[in-house]
Amino acid sequence: MPELRKDPVTGRWVIIANDRAKRPNDFVRDKVEIRATGFCPFCFGNESKTPPEIMAYRADGSARNTPGWSLRVVPNKFPALGIEGTLNRQGEGIYDKMNGIGAHEVIIETPDHRLTLANLPTQQIENVFWAFRDRIIDLKKDRRFRYILIFKNHGEAAGASLEHTHSQLIALPVVPKRVWEEVEGAKEYYTFKERCIFCDMIRQEAESGVRLIADNEGFVAMAPFAPRFPFEIVIIPKVHQSAFEESLKYEFEQLAMILKDMLQRLDRVLEKPAYNFIIHTSPVPDTSNDYYHWHMEIMPKLTKVAGFEWGTGFYINPTPPEESAKFLREAAVTVETV
Amino acid sequence: MPELRKDPVTGRWVIIANDRAKRPNDFVRDKVEIRATGFCPFCFGNESKTPPEIMAYRADGSARNTPGWSLRVVPNKFPALGIEGTLNRQGEGIYDKMNGIGAHEVIIETPDHRLTLANLPTQQIENVFWAFRDRIIDLKKDRRFRYILIFKNHGEAAGASLEHTHSQLIALPVVPKRVWEEVEGAKEYYTFKERCIFCDMIRQEAESGVRLIADNEGFVAMAPFAPRFPFEIVIIPKVHQSAFEESLKYEFEQLAMILKDMLQRLDRVLEKPAYNFIIHTSPVPDTSNDYYHWHMEIMPKLTKVAGFEWGTGFYINPTPPEESAKFLREAAVTVETV
Repeated sequence: MPELRKDPVTGRWVIIANDRAKRPNDFVRDKVEIRATGFCPFCFGNESKTPPEIMAYRADGSARNTPGWSLRVVPNKFPALGIEGTLNRQGEGIYDKMNGIGAHEVIIETPDHRLTLANLPTQQIENVFWAFRDRIIDLKKDRRFRYILIFKNHGEAAGASLEHTHSQLIALPVVPKRVWEEVEGAKEYYTFKERCIFCDMIRQEAESGVRLIADNEGFVAMAPFAPRFPFEIVIIPKVHQSAFEESLKYEFEQLAMILKDMLQRLDRVLEKPAYNFIIHTSPVPDTSNDYYHWHMEIMPKLTKVAGFEWGTGFYINPTPPEESAKFLREAAVTVETV
Repeated sequence: MPELRKDPVTGRWVIIANDRAKRPNDFVRDKVEIRATGFCPFCFGNESKTPPEIMAYRADGSARNTPGWSLRVVPNKFPALGIEGTLNRQGEGIYDKMNGIGAHEVIIETPDHRLTLANLPTQQIENVFWAFRDRIIDLKKDRRFRYILIFKNHGEAAGASLEHTHSQLIALPVVPKRVWEEVEGAKEYYTFKERCIFCDMIRQEAESGVRLIADNEGFVAMAPFAPRFPFEIVIIPKVHQSAFEESLKYEFEQLAMILKDMLQRLDRVLEKPAYNFIIHTSPVPDTSNDYYHWHMEIMPKLTKVAGFEWGTGFYINPTPPEESAKFLREAAVTVETV
């Protein structure tokens, strides 16, 4: 008998197929392999082929837009939103619209085309988080923006158009609905219980253990109770923290280790799948609060979303999280410390 | 400058890329062609290879589960939900779950493997709607169900696992979030304005004309103001009607004509794309009402959904609906009347 499970934060139901659970080899997909064919604008030496850099980490003091960097942030060449102008909110009969103001940036995680995020040195993954933080702090000063989303598309099936490993940032003038639902859900729980729902979740998961994958001093990585996708992972800081950008250095070190660990486990168990990750953090106007708890969601791209999901927002997940957690928990990987 | 547009019913924002609009040929995709290789359980003569039929249209009075049918409804062989049992709603600490009770049926639209829904005789498309209605009316009697969703996945990219043209029905014990948002949004508008928001939309769209694709006596087909996907189409009955299953015979005839018309235009303009359609109708407990207006959404599968969309519920649409409507409006197709 399949099971209907409710996401405790957003209230979204999912169907978990219990009886005929799909195992890692049951999913048909392309391995994400680095081909390195053709010209790459993100490679070392091609700095003039991207829009001028916003920032870069350069240990050698080299000049902007030249080689010598270890990490580089540039505007997206084909941005979804434009940075210049005013919102100009207006109506059109019953409809509402505004100018598509926002920032769309690319974080080039390494100059080396041959590496994936899973294979970067832990220290370099930590630097990627510092870059996320630097950009969030800068963009929060722009009062037009209400939300800053960090995400990554890895592999063509997950929507990546360039192979060279990179993450993206979009600053938005509105809080997106999906984020709003999470924040409101967490707030309602807090109002009722006077506890953070994510903190409660961590406590319950630690006790039961069935959905835990790994943890370290700073973070826990687990399969959510009601995941939309097979082998979905959530990484949550153990100590309550509402905003990603308020993390301590120690926490970014721990996060780098556990993220690398998870990506390596996914590569091992699912044979280098395409994946997306997103960071869910508090919206700009109220970043430090007791009710929301930032976290990272990793979604391997194994299934197709079809009419049922588009029509309902209801997902059918063919792998129970208890089983995906077990596969990932038992995968042997070694991650060096920072 | 891109534009941010808000869906007037659900409040969901989308980014419409105005400046560098993608035209039909800009999308990379596979044509959906019928290959007819291998064994097909939906074909004429293979009736024993599906679970026993729930109903069929048989003009010749032939026996159940034998040839002679023009349309056949069978249980999905790999159902997402099980029909037998009780819901057994229960908690698990902070989590909520229940048994995955529901119906999952397949509507085989024709015995002829070579046809797509776009190429069926209009009369046969009308019969498909009668089958939807017959099944909805029957399933509404089961008091465990709160929502009945009709949908279609056409082509592998849209999630179809069998090529033989078919639609699907899922009866659910909860009203899905995405439907709930629409119903609640429409209800709020009605409370405030004492008018149906969809009726207002039809009126405004008829006046402006820029997003209209076609209409007939019963229905209007248009591109929505804030579509998530390029070339998305919505078909709405002109006269207020909250429930699909309360349509008149005359309306199903008109719907068959306009749906066939739209599918043929999509085939022409986008060269036989994969697509999904869904029917959004009122939830079971309150099917006849003044605030909700049933409709059909058609979504060709042209773009990939990536991290940004999963993280925000915010969609980036590279083709403004005014342009997609123009392409579809200008496509010359002829559809025979019933």
